[in-house]
Amino acid sequence: MKKIEHIGIAVNNLNEANKLYTTLLNTPPYKEEEVESEGVITSFFEVGESKIELLAATREDSPIAKYIKKKGEGIHHIAFYVDNIESEIARLQKEGFVLLNDSPKKGADNKKIAFLHPKSAHGVLIELCEDLK
Amino acid sequence: MKKIEHIGIAVNNLNEANKLYTTLLNTPPYKEEEVESEGVITSFFEVGESKIELLAATREDSPIAKYIKKKGEGIHHIAFYVDNIESEIARLQKEGFVLLNDSPKKGADNKKIAFLHPKSAHGVLIELCEDLK
Repeated sequence: MKKIEHIGIAVNNLNEANKLYTTLLNTPPYKEEEVESEGVITSFFEVGESKIELLAATREDSPIAKYIKKKGEGIHHIAFYVDNIESEIARLQKEGFVLLNDSPKKGADNKKIAFLHPKSAHGVLIELCEDLK
Repeated sequence: MKKIEHIGIAVNNLNEANKLYTTLLNTPPYKEEEVESEGVITSFFEVGESKIELLAATREDSPIAKYIKKKGEGIHHIAFYVDNIESEIARLQKEGFVLLNDSPKKGADNKKIAFLHPKSAHGVLIELCEDLK
């Protein structure tokens, strides 16, 4: 794992959360992006070499809506940047980790992504990501 | 906020979690440290400019034991590195954020630290930290 690419935070209302995190981090979001397939709208803030990604649901069956219903607002996942996502998926599967995606799918922010099952990492939902070339 | 200094993850058993995160991150912890006053034992892994901090309780009244009892293992807090923790506390209080510490206290890894109330940041427990000189 090369760096923490981002931390994903599930929020109810993106506009309200954008205002608060702009004040907290002392920097505005550098972009917003909707991921239609996931039913989610996201915003990104730069912090050093990493990002804070706020995630709000755009429909009731969105994974983010379900997450907030169950656990409330809060940290949803950690994403690690890797140089080669396919070989990292293979390495982790060989080590016995349960991947939610056998092969990468397209994520926000022009990335190939794959998730590990939280049971594989002491309750933490972990995303692997690599830039789409 | 200059960078994500670390992400704190609450775990039941530090040895088991160390093994798993060593495999996951492909790097061993570079140190372990007990914080007697908090009833916690911690281990640290480097990932880029940030760290993953695993936290296990050393006694039943530890905040980490209480957290796991309520929410289960998982991400406990995000720590941001700041250049001047006193002025950052003052800035955030002026902006209406609720701080759990009006002035910094000594934390693990040779740091001055202060926490924001999770209600102040959409359910996220946020730590500010600065190196002790």
